[in-house]
Amino acid sequence: MINKLISKIEKTQAPIVVGLDPMMKFVPEYIQKKAFAEFGETLEGAAEAIWQYNKGIVDAICDLVPAVKPQIAMYEQFGIPGLMAFKKTVDYCKEKGLVVIGDIKRGDIGSTSEAYAVGHVGKVSVGKNSFYGFDEDFVTVNPYLGSDGVKPFIKVCAEEKKGIFVLVKTSNPSSGEFQDRICDGKPLYELVGEKVAQWGEELMGDSYSYVGAVVGATYPEQGKLLRKVMPKSFILVPGYGAQGGKGADLVHFFNEDGLGAIINSSRGIIAAYQQEAYASYGESGYADASRAAVIAMKEDIRQALESR
Amino acid sequence: MINKLISKIEKTQAPIVVGLDPMMKFVPEYIQKKAFAEFGETLEGAAEAIWQYNKGIVDAICDLVPAVKPQIAMYEQFGIPGLMAFKKTVDYCKEKGLVVIGDIKRGDIGSTSEAYAVGHVGKVSVGKNSFYGFDEDFVTVNPYLGSDGVKPFIKVCAEEKKGIFVLVKTSNPSSGEFQDRICDGKPLYELVGEKVAQWGEELMGDSYSYVGAVVGATYPEQGKLLRKVMPKSFILVPGYGAQGGKGADLVHFFNEDGLGAIINSSRGIIAAYQQEAYASYGESGYADASRAAVIAMKEDIRQALESR
Repeated sequence: MINKLISKIEKTQAPIVVGLDPMMKFVPEYIQKKAFAEFGETLEGAAEAIWQYNKGIVDAICDLVPAVKPQIAMYEQFGIPGLMAFKKTVDYCKEKGLVVIGDIKRGDIGSTSEAYAVGHVGKVSVGKNSFYGFDEDFVTVNPYLGSDGVKPFIKVCAEEKKGIFVLVKTSNPSSGEFQDRICDGKPLYELVGEKVAQWGEELMGDSYSYVGAVVGATYPEQGKLLRKVMPKSFILVPGYGAQGGKGADLVHFFNEDGLGAIINSSRGIIAAYQQEAYASYGESGYADASRAAVIAMKEDIRQALESR
Repeated sequence: MINKLISKIEKTQAPIVVGLDPMMKFVPEYIQKKAFAEFGETLEGAAEAIWQYNKGIVDAICDLVPAVKPQIAMYEQFGIPGLMAFKKTVDYCKEKGLVVIGDIKRGDIGSTSEAYAVGHVGKVSVGKNSFYGFDEDFVTVNPYLGSDGVKPFIKVCAEEKKGIFVLVKTSNPSSGEFQDRICDGKPLYELVGEKVAQWGEELMGDSYSYVGAVVGATYPEQGKLLRKVMPKSFILVPGYGAQGGKGADLVHFFNEDGLGAIINSSRGIIAAYQQEAYASYGESGYADASRAAVIAMKEDIRQALESR
């Protein structure tokens, strides 16, 4: 799957992943109204609204980008109907040929981590049969519990040729509270990065590992260091756009081969029509606004990489 | 809810929580057969089997303990049907008067953490209405992302009078890889514990905070230290029984008032009938075996606390 991700990045010339994090305030009124008319102002109505909203965006951008990253929390808040919309979104994106990174930030220990892995990137046995639960291509994983938490994911990924991105240095302002603490002479995120490189050796694709890392665009200096610490790991970079990261901040996340990073933008793309720059598209043109925002982001990153 | 948890602990004289972590290998054959006969060897069949298995245990133990802790991963592995069984289990346990600690180990940032909080311990707005998604009483939270990840949970808990347990020092062998690193002269788990105490001040119940901590029974020395670092936080203690923790290891997790800790046992209780000590109950007596195991655990902890 890491090989597929890389070949799709090369084909689209876009090291970009679109975060499908649908908040109700992003969903155009007319889509909400239609869904509520059919299902009422219920969890089912909300789930239908975010699914239809997603579908419009996916249809508009699927030829431009290699991957999408649905944030499961935004669906899980609507309970079971929300998670059904998550599953529908994952399935639809895969049908459209997109690589799906489930942003689930799970992490536990032993058989419990394995259960998460089985549910999201593997298949579960029931009697003589086996089934895919959510069936993403990659998932994000929290490293706080150490190898006991991460290795069960790697085991399942090895069977399925799927992958993970381990949280190393997150994009949020308070990420430093623990991640920046100096432990035995190094910041914690560097120690986690070293572990990611080590775990990654256990499961290599052709040129990069199936074990990647999450490093926020908002921390370019740390990105530069971590790029060297984990030379064979793809870095998933959130924080571009709405959170303040710019194209020029991103160059150090890439390797000399122009690969090794994939930049995420969520609301900057999916709610583009609510920004001044794309307001002319209007609510009914929200999906086209998303397309235009992807094209602009692609250009911003291309220029930044060219001028490095 | 922390007040309710405490009053139930006092009433039952059992600082015990039963982990409802149903693995298929624990579910008696006859329950599996019945479920598969009705739903086939499908995700729905598996979900029905674990639900019926849970129900038997809950009926057998609900008068003995204050709380249960369903581990969501064990349900999530069966996709949507599995999560429906999780929800059914949560609802049923609450009907039976049990406090429900959702072991979900979620954690993200800002609006995303808030979405998890809303889905699990709060309610979500849809138009003029609002709905509870999963509606546990407490959930476990991963602290790796810092205050940005934890505070949205506290905000939602304040509205709902619900609570969280933040992972501080987990029970697994590799928990030390990051958690034991010495940062600025202190192990990371101690820094996280200090933050838990600080976050906890923001949301106090009568005598303890709504913000608790997870510290593994397998690390009694660390428990002793953390007890002092977080005097007003309840400690949820996994690792008793199957993972190797014993009654005598637990005394330091409690305060002088005999409160402040709640000890989890999962497979030691729910799969008791598979242990030699309870084998005479047989498969069909699995729930009674669980009841007997709870009584033995209660006695083990009572003795340990008396002889301290």
